Amino acid sequence: MSATVFEQFLSTPEMLGVFSEAGVVQAMLDFEAALARAQAGEGLLTDAQAATIAGACRVEQLDVPALLAASGRAGSLAIPLVQQLKACVAQADPEAARRAHHGSTSQDVIDTAMVLCTRRALALIDRDLSSLAGALLRLADAHITTPMLARTLMQPAAVTSFGFKIAQWLQPLLRAQARLHEAGQRALQLQLGGGVGTLAAMGQAGPAVARRTAALLGLPEPHGAWHTQRDDWVRLACELGVLCGSLGKLARDWSLMGQAEVAELAEPSEAGRGGSTAMPHKRNPVAAMAGLAAAQRAPQRVAALLQAMPQEHERGLGNWQAELAEWTGLLLSAHGALKALADAAAGLQVDTARMRHNLALLGDALAPGTDLDEAAAGAGQRADELLQRLRPQAAALAARQPWRAWLP
Amino acid sequence: MSATVFEQFLSTPEMLGVFSEAGVVQAMLDFEAALARAQAGEGLLTDAQAATIAGACRVEQLDVPALLAASGRAGSLAIPLVQQLKACVAQADPEAARRAHHGSTSQDVIDTAMVLCTRRALALIDRDLSSLAGALLRLADAHITTPMLARTLMQPAAVTSFGFKIAQWLQPLLRAQARLHEAGQRALQLQLGGGVGTLAAMGQAGPAVARRTAALLGLPEPHGAWHTQRDDWVRLACELGVLCGSLGKLARDWSLMGQAEVAELAEPSEAGRGGSTAMPHKRNPVAAMAGLAAAQRAPQRVAALLQAMPQEHERGLGNWQAELAEWTGLLLSAHGALKALADAAAGLQVDTARMRHNLALLGDALAPGTDLDEAAAGAGQRADELLQRLRPQAAALAARQPWRAWLP
Amino acid sequence: MSATVFEQFLSTPEMLGVFSEAGVVQAMLDFEAALARAQAGEGLLTDAQAATIAGACRVEQLDVPALLAASGRAGSLAIPLVQQLKACVAQADPEAARRAHHGSTSQDVIDTAMVLCTRRALALIDRDLSSLAGALLRLADAHITTPMLARTLMQPAAVTSFGFKIAQWLQPLLRAQARLHEAGQRALQLQLGGGVGTLAAMGQAGPAVARRTAALLGLPEPHGAWHTQRDDWVRLACELGVLCGSLGKLARDWSLMGQAEVAELAEPSEAGRGGSTAMPHKRNPVAAMAGLAAAQRAPQRVAALLQAMPQEHERGLGNWQAELAEWTGLLLSAHGALKALADAAAGLQVDTARMRHNLALLGDALAPGTDLDEAAAGAGQRADELLQRLRPQAAALAARQPWRAWLP
Amino acid sequence: MSATVFEQFLSTPEMLGVFSEAGVVQAMLDFEAALARAQAGEGLLTDAQAATIAGACRVEQLDVPALLAASGRAGSLAIPLVQQLKACVAQADPEAARRAHHGSTSQDVIDTAMVLCTRRALALIDRDLSSLAGALLRLADAHITTPMLARTLMQPAAVTSFGFKIAQWLQPLLRAQARLHEAGQRALQLQLGGGVGTLAAMGQAGPAVARRTAALLGLPEPHGAWHTQRDDWVRLACELGVLCGSLGKLARDWSLMGQAEVAELAEPSEAGRGGSTAMPHKRNPVAAMAGLAAAQRAPQRVAALLQAMPQEHERGLGNWQAELAEWTGLLLSAHGALKALADAAAGLQVDTARMRHNLALLGDALAPGTDLDEAAAGAGQRADELLQRLRPQAAALAARQPWRAWLP
Repeated sequence: MSATVFEQFLSTPEMLGVFSEAGVVQAMLDFEAALARAQAGEGLLTDAQAATIAGACRVEQLDVPALLAASGRAGSLAIPLVQQLKACVAQADPEAARRAHHGSTSQDVIDTAMVLCTRRALALIDRDLSSLAGALLRLADAHITTPMLARTLMQPAAVTSFGFKIAQWLQPLLRAQARLHEAGQRALQLQLGGGVGTLAAMGQAGPAVARRTAALLGLPEPHGAWHTQRDDWVRLACELGVLCGSLGKLARDWSLMGQAEVAELAEPSEAGRGGSTAMPHKRNPVAAMAGLAAAQRAPQRVAALLQAMPQEHERGLGNWQAELAEWTGLLLSAHGALKALADAAAGLQVDTARMRHNLALLGDALAPGTDLDEAAAGAGQRADELLQRLRPQAAALAARQPWRAWLP
Repeated sequence: MSATVFEQFLSTPEMLGVFSEAGVVQAMLDFEAALARAQAGEGLLTDAQAATIAGACRVEQLDVPALLAASGRAGSLAIPLVQQLKACVAQADPEAARRAHHGSTSQDVIDTAMVLCTRRALALIDRDLSSLAGALLRLADAHITTPMLARTLMQPAAVTSFGFKIAQWLQPLLRAQARLHEAGQRALQLQLGGGVGTLAAMGQAGPAVARRTAALLGLPEPHGAWHTQRDDWVRLACELGVLCGSLGKLARDWSLMGQAEVAELAEPSEAGRGGSTAMPHKRNPVAAMAGLAAAQRAPQRVAALLQAMPQEHERGLGNWQAELAEWTGLLLSAHGALKALADAAAGLQVDTARMRHNLALLGDALAPGTDLDEAAAGAGQRADELLQRLRPQAAALAARQPWRAWLP
Repeated sequence: MSATVFEQFLSTPEMLGVFSEAGVVQAMLDFEAALARAQAGEGLLTDAQAATIAGACRVEQLDVPALLAASGRAGSLAIPLVQQLKACVAQADPEAARRAHHGSTSQDVIDTAMVLCTRRALALIDRDLSSLAGALLRLADAHITTPMLARTLMQPAAVTSFGFKIAQWLQPLLRAQARLHEAGQRALQLQLGGGVGTLAAMGQAGPAVARRTAALLGLPEPHGAWHTQRDDWVRLACELGVLCGSLGKLARDWSLMGQAEVAELAEPSEAGRGGSTAMPHKRNPVAAMAGLAAAQRAPQRVAALLQAMPQEHERGLGNWQAELAEWTGLLLSAHGALKALADAAAGLQVDTARMRHNLALLGDALAPGTDLDEAAAGAGQRADELLQRLRPQAAALAARQPWRAWLP
Repeated sequence: MSATVFEQFLSTPEMLGVFSEAGVVQAMLDFEAALARAQAGEGLLTDAQAATIAGACRVEQLDVPALLAASGRAGSLAIPLVQQLKACVAQADPEAARRAHHGSTSQDVIDTAMVLCTRRALALIDRDLSSLAGALLRLADAHITTPMLARTLMQPAAVTSFGFKIAQWLQPLLRAQARLHEAGQRALQLQLGGGVGTLAAMGQAGPAVARRTAALLGLPEPHGAWHTQRDDWVRLACELGVLCGSLGKLARDWSLMGQAEVAELAEPSEAGRGGSTAMPHKRNPVAAMAGLAAAQRAPQRVAALLQAMPQEHERGLGNWQAELAEWTGLLLSAHGALKALADAAAGLQVDTARMRHNLALLGDALAPGTDLDEAAAGAGQRADELLQRLRPQAAALAARQPWRAWLP
């Protein structure tokens, strides 16, 4: 797998597949194929040349380890890729080989490949956000007026309802889904500017080639290269960071409610899940673990991406490359957390008796004769108002599925 | 001034004023006054009581140093503030004093105060983004086809035009302005949930009081407390982080173009600006300095805010308080950078002859007989297309002024 | 106070005093006075000139607000300071005024001032680390074999002793104290290099003047300017970051043990401590709050300082200035946390019966008939071995007091 | 390779090997083998059982993909590893299988494995720091009085010598090497505490088994488990962060001096190095690129590790796992930068004529008739003093080689 051992541990096979060596290299080749076809559409290549180039754009035909080995010295993954691609094309048509990749630059290939991989990554995240939201909605409906203890600054505070607490968990997840749709639409842009962003090598045909290339890749109408203007790209990362923060909130609450002394909640219990090598009696909350880990790591990824923004002139030195390396980690980790929490949410074990029992901790703060159900009803009313708003939002978001067609 | 010495140095008097001790405390009092009036509107207080409370809500009447001194031990700035306020009100009307702040909690006061201060802060940023964008647009128009060297990975790459480069600088700044409008609208929300977010202490009147309080403060219709759901709030911080990144990009390019060996650009030269105690001949690029400093610091602020998101249960322990402390620094630093760059942009000194001269560095990469003006014309065409799109955007954004009415 | 409202809230009056405007400016003047005296010692000034300069080096004689106001435009705090100082000296002796500050540069003044302030800051931290360690040692002695529940991944794990747990808390605090001594000795260095680090303006006398200046300020023998070699300086910040992490570990455990459902530990209860505006029954763990807040914020300060290390050539643009602004925040926050935890540790309330009670959560994992005291004795033996090592370490560290002489 | 595509690009094959799946799993098995042998030494196992267990501790005998696949659900890499190991041992001796791993916990295996891998990683870094220091020393000797322009805040400042500048680069690298030796000695500790750190499952034999296990693995005398006391471990990460900062400083200066407009320095020129797909004339500074990328990424790794320090009770939930994932990335990136810079330093191309030429930029600041060589001699004298101190330090550090025996 193309991630370090402990990165893999906190991610998912699906997301590791999206950003595998083969996944990234194929996405680079998808760019080259689309560029060739677009150039043929504008008369810069013959259709036959474009077909030859596109035909060679299959990762199986490349020597990926050699490509990766050469990339460090070359200073770019695209240089050995273009060399291998040209060599491959040249066997069929030397003139086509000479023209392959023409008019574009390393950053065009690599950034567009990252866009294509990220689109798949977002599809996975969108799918599992719907699944998590669905599970929480069902849970909220079931517990809308279940009385439980609200806690502030880690101390007993007052009566609330579990449904209100769940609605609070849910709200930022739906916002995250909606904002990821927005941010994704803005960030998933073709990169094509040629050497210095002006499309100079393709003369007057440049903008038209860019439009065609974008269309072939299913990307929106391009509005110019963004080689050193990374703002919309980094905004998408910020959204992922915010998502991880909201998942972390969920995970934090679960981990606290799942303490044996609190015992209001437990992650589902299954064979092979959350064991211990030293203590066979233990059942560890592994979904909360993944959520908390992501919430601790994502902020640093976002910081690194923001830090990399002041890229020099027309292509950055070090900062662009740092950005590429940081980007993948954010998605690996976000999906690891989301998937673990969505799976666990579907089988979450709730102990309403214990919730009621823990309310006794309010002691004198709870006036004598207080009816807990009545006290919870107020919170339940707030929850109900909220859920009436959230339910259709969740349905609409789940139906939208902006990138599911691109799922691996 | 309410900031450390070297924070002040990198900020502006205006922004320091917004987040001064008096500024923050007055904003807390503005919340209390609006709450009292709203509660009177719903019959929870008499109009006279509300007027008495509101009348006491003036920072001049409080002992701010005592309030700050007590806050650490109390664990909240709101506790001593409410005590002082009640003492003040009690002199006129003990019953009004007893009812002041009722139904709300520390976090309601503090979060809403931060919202009110942030609205002013965003107004300053919005104003100066328009000013910077205006200056860059004028510069772009003047240099749309001025030939200059494009550089990638810090090496000479190809011919571009200065106008194209400026348009590239401008684009993310306009996006930042637009997105700050969006993110601000979403984040600048009343905080009012009472002890645990359910508005329980105000009974059925809670939501109506919240609506009235928001209206009195000029805030949008509230949709529930967000005590431990900080996502939209942190998204606003992310936008500020992205803005700082784009300002840093501008500053990085200026600092590189302003090197004596390059000499294509210089910040304006005035008495008292950018001197040196050791070397009187020097003129230091102090606007670029502020821009680069903000671009290095903002990512860490954003990371801290993201990190603080998994707040426990109904009010966080340590993370909410960490967030409050980080928030201000981000705005101080962002405005310091923006104002410095906007001021400098208006007087930027451009050496087009030197730009032309530096193109010689392309050497053989520039085919013999290449006409530099012709080569720059292609980039100019791209720039022109871009500017035709950006000009009306800039005008529309400058006209919008969402928060200028709240300027200090 | 010279910090933002919510920075003050999480710091201490003592540390705010160290880095106040007057504190920082006086430290800059202390450098100027020592430099003048050292130069007189090497014959570059007359003793009378040096005395005149040194006599003017009192913060009361400067217009600090004017100085701060001018610093932004000037691009340095030192430029207006040197101007004001020279103006002040010139009233007595124009020739002395001309010679004041000669041979040094802005960064010499500012970095040395930060070193002097940081020495005081470390003295405060050293003092309170001894106090916290002392309190924990006493507590460990009292509870060396007290049985309690050990918890892993937030779940009940096995029997341990409270003394063992306390010894685990203590160990990294003593290491932090020892390493701060080391890192402080290395980092608290005179900065004196003149314009570009070569001491050129003082000719052959440069190194001797540096040695004398350092001696006058109580700093170790200098080994050259470190204008853009910030490694030892940043290492000190790393130590502070690690300290905050270890304080955060303590605070995290306290906050968990202090939950009403666990109830093994409580922070001391006093008037004015940890109240709530909405819920008078609450007692909030404000020391844990400060500890957790610092542990969340310090990593970002450290990251910002590491990020600022690649400073350009002989003086950085933006990164040095960013470093200055980040530095203070780290110390404000570290001391806020440490002092709060040290104060609370002295009055920590321990419920050993509840500890014993919570062991029942081990259920079947605890073999029937297990004697809890016997089970805890094993952990107590480990604790005892550890404490025998730690006790003399704590005493030696407390006796060392490397910077207490410089306490404000 | 076990790292994401763009992580690989910025690292080295050697370091990727150290932290490969096989590398990490074998290190885990090395712990299990040593533990078994140590337990036999203390009579907890027969020698034959220990030999059987140790004989099975070879990564080739395990199904690593299955192990990784199971780890996510299990919540630990150690659980499936111990299962596979036991199954393997059971074929030869079921009783030995039952006893394998006994007395230790998941975190013991994993943390010790990370220690063993990190020891190899530090050996690589130590080796290449010697190589980089050697190259810089040679360069400094050759240019000790070569006049060049010193620059502050990116502007011409005064005359210095290239030798002085190189000595400034060198100094923090030697400090980094010395401090890595110190920090490594402190951090590379056996982890062995059993379930909750008390070694309870091994009774009185626990400490002796720990001492034997450490000795067998070539680790120092252990002083207790450090399951949730990560301070010395994170200090090592801080040292790596500081190293990356100092490498970044070197890389920043190279990138600035290598600009075509400055042209004082160039990275070595070889086939396959630093090319461009769009602009064949370009030679990109790929070593500076790796250095700058690491200096941008390392601070965030360090921040994540500091952030993870407040681990709950006796084993953290999410934060320990986050730490594991962050750790590897730091070493991959640090070695990528160091190796690239060390290789380039050996072939660095220096243009002393251009250095002399650029001094003209000082203009009037250089008094008429100034002899540049004379002016540089002062800086050369400082450089000479420094180098006399640094040369023996470098030799002593290069000779020490604390971990080279463990090189892969």
